[in-house]
Amino acid sequence: MHETLAALAAGDISVATAEARLAGYATGESGRFDAAREGRSGVPEAVLADGKGEEEVVELLGLALETTGRGLATRIDDEAATVVQARLGEEWPEADISHEERAGVLRAYTADYEPPSLDAVVGVVTAGTVDAGPAGEAAAIVREMGATVERYDDVGVAGIHRLLDELDGVREADVLVVAAGREGALPTVLAGLVDVPVIALPTASGYGYGGEGEAALAGALQSCTALTTVNVDAGFVAGAQAGLIARAVDGARQ
Amino acid sequence: MHETLAALAAGDISVATAEARLAGYATGESGRFDAAREGRSGVPEAVLADGKGEEEVVELLGLALETTGRGLATRIDDEAATVVQARLGEEWPEADISHEERAGVLRAYTADYEPPSLDAVVGVVTAGTVDAGPAGEAAAIVREMGATVERYDDVGVAGIHRLLDELDGVREADVLVVAAGREGALPTVLAGLVDVPVIALPTASGYGYGGEGEAALAGALQSCTALTTVNVDAGFVAGAQAGLIARAVDGARQ
Amino acid sequence: MHETLAALAAGDISVATAEARLAGYATGESGRFDAAREGRSGVPEAVLADGKGEEEVVELLGLALETTGRGLATRIDDEAATVVQARLGEEWPEADISHEERAGVLRAYTADYEPPSLDAVVGVVTAGTVDAGPAGEAAAIVREMGATVERYDDVGVAGIHRLLDELDGVREADVLVVAAGREGALPTVLAGLVDVPVIALPTASGYGYGGEGEAALAGALQSCTALTTVNVDAGFVAGAQAGLIARAVDGARQ
Amino acid sequence: MHETLAALAAGDISVATAEARLAGYATGESGRFDAAREGRSGVPEAVLADGKGEEEVVELLGLALETTGRGLATRIDDEAATVVQARLGEEWPEADISHEERAGVLRAYTADYEPPSLDAVVGVVTAGTVDAGPAGEAAAIVREMGATVERYDDVGVAGIHRLLDELDGVREADVLVVAAGREGALPTVLAGLVDVPVIALPTASGYGYGGEGEAALAGALQSCTALTTVNVDAGFVAGAQAGLIARAVDGARQ
Amino acid sequence: MHETLAALAAGDISVATAEARLAGYATGESGRFDAAREGRSGVPEAVLADGKGEEEVVELLGLALETTGRGLATRIDDEAATVVQARLGEEWPEADISHEERAGVLRAYTADYEPPSLDAVVGVVTAGTVDAGPAGEAAAIVREMGATVERYDDVGVAGIHRLLDELDGVREADVLVVAAGREGALPTVLAGLVDVPVIALPTASGYGYGGEGEAALAGALQSCTALTTVNVDAGFVAGAQAGLIARAVDGARQ
Amino acid sequence: MHETLAALAAGDISVATAEARLAGYATGESGRFDAAREGRSGVPEAVLADGKGEEEVVELLGLALETTGRGLATRIDDEAATVVQARLGEEWPEADISHEERAGVLRAYTADYEPPSLDAVVGVVTAGTVDAGPAGEAAAIVREMGATVERYDDVGVAGIHRLLDELDGVREADVLVVAAGREGALPTVLAGLVDVPVIALPTASGYGYGGEGEAALAGALQSCTALTTVNVDAGFVAGAQAGLIARAVDGARQ
Amino acid sequence: MHETLAALAAGDISVATAEARLAGYATGESGRFDAAREGRSGVPEAVLADGKGEEEVVELLGLALETTGRGLATRIDDEAATVVQARLGEEWPEADISHEERAGVLRAYTADYEPPSLDAVVGVVTAGTVDAGPAGEAAAIVREMGATVERYDDVGVAGIHRLLDELDGVREADVLVVAAGREGALPTVLAGLVDVPVIALPTASGYGYGGEGEAALAGALQSCTALTTVNVDAGFVAGAQAGLIARAVDGARQ
Amino acid sequence: MHETLAALAAGDISVATAEARLAGYATGESGRFDAAREGRSGVPEAVLADGKGEEEVVELLGLALETTGRGLATRIDDEAATVVQARLGEEWPEADISHEERAGVLRAYTADYEPPSLDAVVGVVTAGTVDAGPAGEAAAIVREMGATVERYDDVGVAGIHRLLDELDGVREADVLVVAAGREGALPTVLAGLVDVPVIALPTASGYGYGGEGEAALAGALQSCTALTTVNVDAGFVAGAQAGLIARAVDGARQ
Repeated sequence: MHETLAALAAGDISVATAEARLAGYATGESGRFDAAREGRSGVPEAVLADGKGEEEVVELLGLALETTGRGLATRIDDEAATVVQARLGEEWPEADISHEERAGVLRAYTADYEPPSLDAVVGVVTAGTVDAGPAGEAAAIVREMGATVERYDDVGVAGIHRLLDELDGVREADVLVVAAGREGALPTVLAGLVDVPVIALPTASGYGYGGEGEAALAGALQSCTALTTVNVDAGFVAGAQAGLIARAVDGARQ
Repeated sequence: MHETLAALAAGDISVATAEARLAGYATGESGRFDAAREGRSGVPEAVLADGKGEEEVVELLGLALETTGRGLATRIDDEAATVVQARLGEEWPEADISHEERAGVLRAYTADYEPPSLDAVVGVVTAGTVDAGPAGEAAAIVREMGATVERYDDVGVAGIHRLLDELDGVREADVLVVAAGREGALPTVLAGLVDVPVIALPTASGYGYGGEGEAALAGALQSCTALTTVNVDAGFVAGAQAGLIARAVDGARQ
Repeated sequence: MHETLAALAAGDISVATAEARLAGYATGESGRFDAAREGRSGVPEAVLADGKGEEEVVELLGLALETTGRGLATRIDDEAATVVQARLGEEWPEADISHEERAGVLRAYTADYEPPSLDAVVGVVTAGTVDAGPAGEAAAIVREMGATVERYDDVGVAGIHRLLDELDGVREADVLVVAAGREGALPTVLAGLVDVPVIALPTASGYGYGGEGEAALAGALQSCTALTTVNVDAGFVAGAQAGLIARAVDGARQ
Repeated sequence: MHETLAALAAGDISVATAEARLAGYATGESGRFDAAREGRSGVPEAVLADGKGEEEVVELLGLALETTGRGLATRIDDEAATVVQARLGEEWPEADISHEERAGVLRAYTADYEPPSLDAVVGVVTAGTVDAGPAGEAAAIVREMGATVERYDDVGVAGIHRLLDELDGVREADVLVVAAGREGALPTVLAGLVDVPVIALPTASGYGYGGEGEAALAGALQSCTALTTVNVDAGFVAGAQAGLIARAVDGARQ
Repeated sequence: MHETLAALAAGDISVATAEARLAGYATGESGRFDAAREGRSGVPEAVLADGKGEEEVVELLGLALETTGRGLATRIDDEAATVVQARLGEEWPEADISHEERAGVLRAYTADYEPPSLDAVVGVVTAGTVDAGPAGEAAAIVREMGATVERYDDVGVAGIHRLLDELDGVREADVLVVAAGREGALPTVLAGLVDVPVIALPTASGYGYGGEGEAALAGALQSCTALTTVNVDAGFVAGAQAGLIARAVDGARQ
Repeated sequence: MHETLAALAAGDISVATAEARLAGYATGESGRFDAAREGRSGVPEAVLADGKGEEEVVELLGLALETTGRGLATRIDDEAATVVQARLGEEWPEADISHEERAGVLRAYTADYEPPSLDAVVGVVTAGTVDAGPAGEAAAIVREMGATVERYDDVGVAGIHRLLDELDGVREADVLVVAAGREGALPTVLAGLVDVPVIALPTASGYGYGGEGEAALAGALQSCTALTTVNVDAGFVAGAQAGLIARAVDGARQ
Repeated sequence: MHETLAALAAGDISVATAEARLAGYATGESGRFDAAREGRSGVPEAVLADGKGEEEVVELLGLALETTGRGLATRIDDEAATVVQARLGEEWPEADISHEERAGVLRAYTADYEPPSLDAVVGVVTAGTVDAGPAGEAAAIVREMGATVERYDDVGVAGIHRLLDELDGVREADVLVVAAGREGALPTVLAGLVDVPVIALPTASGYGYGGEGEAALAGALQSCTALTTVNVDAGFVAGAQAGLIARAVDGARQ
Repeated sequence: MHETLAALAAGDISVATAEARLAGYATGESGRFDAAREGRSGVPEAVLADGKGEEEVVELLGLALETTGRGLATRIDDEAATVVQARLGEEWPEADISHEERAGVLRAYTADYEPPSLDAVVGVVTAGTVDAGPAGEAAAIVREMGATVERYDDVGVAGIHRLLDELDGVREADVLVVAAGREGALPTVLAGLVDVPVIALPTASGYGYGGEGEAALAGALQSCTALTTVNVDAGFVAGAQAGLIARAVDGARQ
């Protein structure tokens, strides 16, 4: 504590950084940033942009950069991303800021940020084109946590040969995230064919009864194979859990 | 009409038969039996035993035998079936009465009943052991309508090789009824592999959220392949629709 | 395989066509086009435009034209259709491109495309004006599969004489698609009057409790007659299943 | 008030009757009996037996007999009815007590009870045998309110000719209660054919999705004709509303 | 029939009028108008504008004016009403056209249209300001059917004295339509205080769980008093049923 | 800590009591008893008997008696209560054990247990006879927390005069628990008439759609007055919250 | 009454004020304002702006100012607030009008309005930034009722140390309102740690299954601690109930 | 293949074993046993006893013993377990058969069965006594897959100190299964405190709205921390997924 307070007194660190080191979080107008989250629970804190104003996102990302060297925003639409990217760039001219449209993820790193690196592979599989958004969000989080991502796209069960063609590669992953909407049969079929953990990521890509992803979610919960699931379109959560498993594998490999 | 009335006056036919010929239905204490249903809509009238007293079932089957030469009861449990079989046997000593336990179907034919015969094959497929009840009910109705039934059991997608092993046979059918509970992925996977109509028959074989067959039903409704569905455990309806398609095919084959 | 590779090497066919012949699908930026679907499962692959960008639709329709001679987009709104039609026309100047507004279907054929033809009739029936969209989508798919479509519109049960007036014609069809919203009584009433397979197509034309088509869907699932159903507004699926039945009848007629 | 208190003091009336005259209700161990309900809102107070102990039912019926000359219990099963009938008979040896099994209604009248009489007809229509229970409860309440009941049974839409055969009679009623389960199409079809108020009475006679009467209820709420509905199996409410309409018609006829 | 055909041949009536007289309905591009509905089922046919294009509404109202002398559109928003009113006015310059904004109803009468008149009063009651729309639609239909409407507004149970203040007037009506959203307690409280039929009209005026009118609907279905209900915001149906009861009362009064 | 350990070593207290004093809970075969709950959160820990075996209940009540001087079991049915009462009496011969049937509550006190006492009144109101169970559970908990309970039973809104007759008394309470099933209108009506906090206690006393208490719960959540609610039949929770408010009032009165 | 009428005759009070004094409410074009609500039930009447036109809000706030000296609008969005503030300012130039954006609350006081004051503290706690809106609405109502508000923001359970850091302060409040969305665990965790009444305020801050606040609501209803809940986003109700408890505490403190 | 056939011809192996080696499954009267499942997907095949007859369970366990040396039945109640244990013991006198009541698991090993062993720890945590069943099922499967199980019971969030007391131990596990019913807050709180993968196991231990485990499931899906979930009471699936993660860790440790 003494050290932190001394650094603050000397002007070497900001109030936010001091608070983050002492209390584990930093407080701004727009709320608190849980700077200690990654250390405590292994998952990087991200700013859920959906439902927040652009100013709030900018401020929270600033707190994140200041205290952890990295800022992540998820579920950010293109319009907001453009504004946030510009505003954040003004405040953090040396930061490396990028935006992945389909995944709805915005990243910023300070110049001296050192990303983690894990010796583990996460397979991210999609049933169809429309599942690319949530799958992309999952992949982005996995990469932030340091694991390698392998993608297998558009291998839905309507034409099951597309899946069988890719099976050898899929089996090499340490853990799989499988995104599928509609009836969500792909995670079940895949989990019957591989011996690694499968995380279902149901997507809201249908219409009519059950079309908001409920059918795919129910299918994952009722699966006659062994898999776990996250909520509809919860790419961040699927990716984070896959990342935690990758961390466990990496730790054991050391 | 004159002929029917003359036969009634002469005692050659019963009041019920006369009413059935003139009005299309026969009336008893327990309700009406729609004797003209098979002629009008191609599907034999059956007595849904569940929710009716045994006396009611016996009386309605009697009306059925009297006016059409055949009586069918569905969703009849073992206990009721024993009582009904005994009671009906007393009243119709020459009738041929049988009971299929797992399917919950009881059949009775008069000695001179001539069953229909169709030149068409209906494949009835199950994902697991627990789907045998509704699938059996479907198969029973198909047979009553005169088509040939081919069964493919226990070929669920948890081990998809079981399905692929049977695929050549499955493809020979004119129409398929596919019974599956839990996440109900089998109808979707199968419909992607064959070019005949597939009718999904969701079953109530799961537990927890969506376990009363809702997940399997939602899966059929959201299927990314082209199939139609019936309600959960609606074996009669699935069989009847398959029978109507078999009739259409048979008619075209003549 | 040799032949395909030789043709590719000679520049006679595109990479997409070669991949489609060898693997059964063609891969673009926007995903894969399942070129082998119609051969494998009897139903033409269509591009579900809803939820995709216009560029994606154009690219996928191009893959379709290139590998099968025909491109179909469904659930395409007027605005997107105008853009897609223009862009596709630039790339495929000789293609015959048309757009059916109410049905939300866009079609494109290469000059040498030979449509299938089936000796079978599908009746498409609507309860009211608002059911015309999904019914039109169903009819469009039936026509693409080669069967003849007969339409019977606005014959809902609020005034049942409208239905009875058309009954003779309706009975001539080989299979019926019956579109109805609100309480969805029409499929049930009709299935009690005809002896051909009836496919219910519930539509989202109500309001209040059950107004998103759930009441009509539940009515189809609980129908006291024998019919199967598709999801709410699933015109493509209803038409495809009717087309498969028409194929079966046509095959038997040869 | 003076008169009531005098009668109580003289022992001519019981405490319960005195309380009922003064406060409008009578209080026992098992709760209060709303003796003034029929005068205030036109509908006789009945004891909902389901969920109450037999002792409670007996006591409440006693309060009813004492204060209004009539006791009604609804949703009483056969076992409870036998007990209640015996116990009540001991306490009220001169009362006329009867039990209608299928309707689940138990009635008791004191010797001097004078039933109401209305110059109006309520048609009670059922789709099938299984609807007889709730329809019987409705009919019983209508009769208690003094109107004439006409029954039309087993005229469901699976064979619509059964309904058309009865239509002339049905049209003579002043108001209709139409009981139907499964998809519940009968109230809609009927309301399109008659010009009197139709009250739908959905019944819980199906199975699978929507089989607890929800499909029939949703169908009534979404009906494309003009009708009102009561809850699933709410025979008492349907009968009471029909009785109130009969009362209004009767009042206008005087 | 001869007469109608002669009038058509002589040019005295239009094709639509001739079809309406012979078949009961008139057919246009936009569907059929059920001209015989009022004669058959006592309820005027109205055009549900929501979900139809303005051109369709204009054409159907034209068919209505031509065959019955009156055109009604319901659930028409202000923008569409302005367009329809203008267009219809061009085609029917002598028609009397009016638009009731809050109720969302547009009316048109030919110069010689003679409205019905009933000797009966329908009370229309609202719990709060936000219920005025559906209640207004109900009132409009009641007036079209010829009954007198009495309004009692803003008498919700949060301040029950507002209701008690109006009770004497409310009790004079022959039948009541009671519109209430949120928890929908008003119909129940009122039905306990009057002896005429009460029709609940739940409205979608809440928020959160059950806020789309489901709570008010469930409350009406579970009411511990005797009332019937219509769907959420179904002002037309509530008004039509009240009108039918008014007709029955009026008929009995003659 | 020293004191506790000394007492344990001296045999003055049991291991369970020592653990309870040190850790706040006591551990048995059947789980842990949260002996510190009342001190920490103001609400006595009770054993939810439903779903536990009788042996488990006996053991947990024993731990409760040993560590706090009082044992409470809720949702205990008559059969289990008899067994538990007998078994507990053997182990704790000097304890005062009683069972309140309708409320499903079993209480045991050691001889030296000193109950709390609060200077505050909680009104417990029921709409009908069937609400007596949950209301009784609520009242029992209130009494255990030391407040005075006033009961107002059977004052449902079907006959609102019953409520108005009791209003003066009701208004004297410091806080109200209002139990109602069916449409659950009573809490709303009452909250509009009093200026103390009202806690709705929805009960599962209906049938058909919303009959498991959902309608009453939705009504409480949508209430147009200001009240809070607990879950269906959650008498313990309603009573505990009322008790906490009574504690707050009592504390302020000192 | 005489006094009021005299004042009206003398022109000292308006018609609305006279009506409010005599009947308890004031009537305008836009409905009634329940001026007596605060006196009767302790909660100030507020105008729910959502779903009302701006003119209606202005008129109702005018009635409020005229009869009670204060006008409150809730759920008012920024655009409407600007218009209403301007219009109301023109009509009431001396009124003090302010708008709290995040809480969606608009307040107006006449110059001589004397706000209530209570000797009690309400703690308002939020789990995250997105809960600030409903929590702000609750806090605003509490303040209008005169109690002191203490805020504890952004202390959700994902990082439970944030909550533990604030616990001492939280425990000082007389009653707590705890706003949380997503899984809504905060109210449960908090209620296990404090001995004052906790009111859960679920918010609609999630996505996917249960994301409209249903998960948070269900969590509050199922909480294993003792708390009550209001509907999703029902800040007004939570604040009003907390205010009533504060009133009770304040009353006891006098 | 030759070897297998030779062994069969020599009588060294049974038909079932031969079929299992060649096709991957063994077929009996009661269905197929997927003997290759553990090899293919890492999870042992178990017989879901619930919904199967005792004879079926015995036969399938026999097939399991014959082909894999181990038989597992899950969701088996005490009564069935007794029968199955006896019958299986007769057929396999040398097998080691045991039954774990609370977990509902029955195990049988042949004398020469060699269980797997993994160098990994799975923590199994419960919120309360009633969660012991599903948690026990999960633990049993984990042990069958060879990992070490550590149990932490009765640490629910109502008294969060119980959890904090155990935290050091919990953090040592490689993966956690966290069983909780009611509002299901424990998995969320725990996942915020540890950096290993957490699998939520919602249990059906509540009552009223959401009491069948839906609230706990919704809470897991909406969790503001990163965790995955299985269906309500799906102990097998939770254990199997934890086992797969343990396998991955073990593999990396080698």
